[in-house]
Amino acid sequence: MKITEINLSSSKSVIYCGVGAFEKYAKQLIGTNAFIVTDSNIYKIYAKLINETFVSTPVYVISAGEKSKNKKTLFNILQAMLEHNLDRDCCVVALGGGVVGDIAGFAASMFMRGVKLIQIPTTLLAQVDSSVGGKTAIDFYGVKNSVGAFYQPFAVIADSLFLKTLPVRELRCGLGEIVKYGALDKDIYNKLFENIKNFSDISFLQSIIFDCIAHKIEVVSADERDVNGVRKTLNAGHTTGHAFELFYGRKSHGEYVLIGMYYELLIAERRGICWGQYPENLKKLICAVVKKIPVYADINKAAILALHDKKNTEGLISIIVPVSEGRVEEVKLSFEEYVKELEYAAMEIQNSYEKS
Amino acid sequence: MKITEINLSSSKSVIYCGVGAFEKYAKQLIGTNAFIVTDSNIYKIYAKLINETFVSTPVYVISAGEKSKNKKTLFNILQAMLEHNLDRDCCVVALGGGVVGDIAGFAASMFMRGVKLIQIPTTLLAQVDSSVGGKTAIDFYGVKNSVGAFYQPFAVIADSLFLKTLPVRELRCGLGEIVKYGALDKDIYNKLFENIKNFSDISFLQSIIFDCIAHKIEVVSADERDVNGVRKTLNAGHTTGHAFELFYGRKSHGEYVLIGMYYELLIAERRGICWGQYPENLKKLICAVVKKIPVYADINKAAILALHDKKNTEGLISIIVPVSEGRVEEVKLSFEEYVKELEYAAMEIQNSYEKS
Repeated sequence: MKITEINLSSSKSVIYCGVGAFEKYAKQLIGTNAFIVTDSNIYKIYAKLINETFVSTPVYVISAGEKSKNKKTLFNILQAMLEHNLDRDCCVVALGGGVVGDIAGFAASMFMRGVKLIQIPTTLLAQVDSSVGGKTAIDFYGVKNSVGAFYQPFAVIADSLFLKTLPVRELRCGLGEIVKYGALDKDIYNKLFENIKNFSDISFLQSIIFDCIAHKIEVVSADERDVNGVRKTLNAGHTTGHAFELFYGRKSHGEYVLIGMYYELLIAERRGICWGQYPENLKKLICAVVKKIPVYADINKAAILALHDKKNTEGLISIIVPVSEGRVEEVKLSFEEYVKELEYAAMEIQNSYEKS
Repeated sequence: MKITEINLSSSKSVIYCGVGAFEKYAKQLIGTNAFIVTDSNIYKIYAKLINETFVSTPVYVISAGEKSKNKKTLFNILQAMLEHNLDRDCCVVALGGGVVGDIAGFAASMFMRGVKLIQIPTTLLAQVDSSVGGKTAIDFYGVKNSVGAFYQPFAVIADSLFLKTLPVRELRCGLGEIVKYGALDKDIYNKLFENIKNFSDISFLQSIIFDCIAHKIEVVSADERDVNGVRKTLNAGHTTGHAFELFYGRKSHGEYVLIGMYYELLIAERRGICWGQYPENLKKLICAVVKKIPVYADINKAAILALHDKKNTEGLISIIVPVSEGRVEEVKLSFEEYVKELEYAAMEIQNSYEKS
């Protein structure tokens, strides 16, 4: 097991990563003045473990799925906390995937102007990404993560214990973000290449989870509040991925990130900022997770949804594109240019299928 | 005019305090990518000034009064910001009293996980207290400020320009908090005593506003997130004052703070931690604002509302009582003790009226 710290100007988080972390640390870190938020999927499987580990601690179960990430669920949680007479010394435990982490984390940031938060991510995606770094949010007025807070957890417990019961779709979702880390970090990139056949092996995953967290810690330490450009790199693939996810919404988030990255990689190639063997290799990594990159028909309608992306400024769409091993770059495009580029990319993907 | 900074671990606020601050700094600090929140009272009087100063900046007008400090108004503001296509580089301007500062500040903290906030307090209370220090909140589930954030404004512009149109009730409200600062700061205490006849004089107020802000800056710098006890001192009078305010709710917040402080001062006297000439002098200062301290009949019912106070821990009621010039102390009481003490205090006040 590995224990690491993130030291930020105003707070410190400790990450406990590895097999046995839950059993060894959860009870002791959380204490008795706590409130657990989880979702219906997790509770179905782990009710016994939760109730035996945290005896007589209130457990609030939200419906599983992104649709719970709304203001109604948020205020239901806050109301339940008030009904349980919790005070400002209490600890909110987010035990679940990204949705639970986002909404319980946001609730913790608001309750009595902020109480202690412990993230216990149970999905691969949440373990490598959302549980670390303090981003919390709900979706509001049709805009993903439009309302939220930067709120650092006191501790993160990332234990592969929970990965054993993860549906394949969720595993692919997490792998999507892991391959994204490959585009940002040469060591992760190489490790992924060497293990391209082991993507569903739990012991490989446990080791790559720590690498991804370590990379994220570095980024978050350099740019906690996403203001100086460093943290933006974590959004590689996300501008286009989010837009497709919002418009089509069938696959998992991580797969859309990779589909977005694939389209954005083609844009980078066309603009001459990514060349040689690298784009072909990165495409292989992407296709190890997303077997077939979709060719979308309504690309201009989907692209409209990228207009609300938080990275955008001055009316320009911002995309973070891969340029070489471990390196990405920001490209800013007008909406018209962006749509044209996406249409070219779709055509190119279509052509490659017709050729093969 | 005076310009001061608050330097906190994660942010910096600049305070512009004095006559002319609005005219000189508001437009330049706020820029063009902004969203103004104000209330119906302010907008009735200052619509022209606002629209001429901030040309073509959207203005969102909430109903004046504490009842607007709820989640519905909060999300209406956030929705309006999305409808105006504001991005994460925008600036939210809270132009109004404490309610506007609280709700617009909280909205700024949440929108896209936090955008720039400028406080332009228009009431005496907001100028000396709520606009400085970063506390924002809404009332939820019957509990005052139960949901909120610590969110530092980028700038505060405190200009007595707005005080000229302030109703007497609002002036008394601000004076309530100013006299509270007197209990915390010997220099303010002495200045108040010397000016006990000038409490409604605008030029006296302009000078004491700066002293109060300076005191608050010192406290907030030592304890931004209200965790080590320093910031708690600002809540002198508030535990009991809040409870009375929630239960009776006729007078202004600042007057309830002083009524609370009066009751808590009697508790301190009875417990032997405040004695000599000081309590009598402080009572004189309090009564220069609240002419007659009420004797409440339903004190035990009102006291129940103190059970939700955020300072409480381990089931004990926490009150911050005056002990000597410029010094306060925390006293923790069980609910039963607290009710008994309040009943004694009420009896004592009743007796003093019968004697005189």
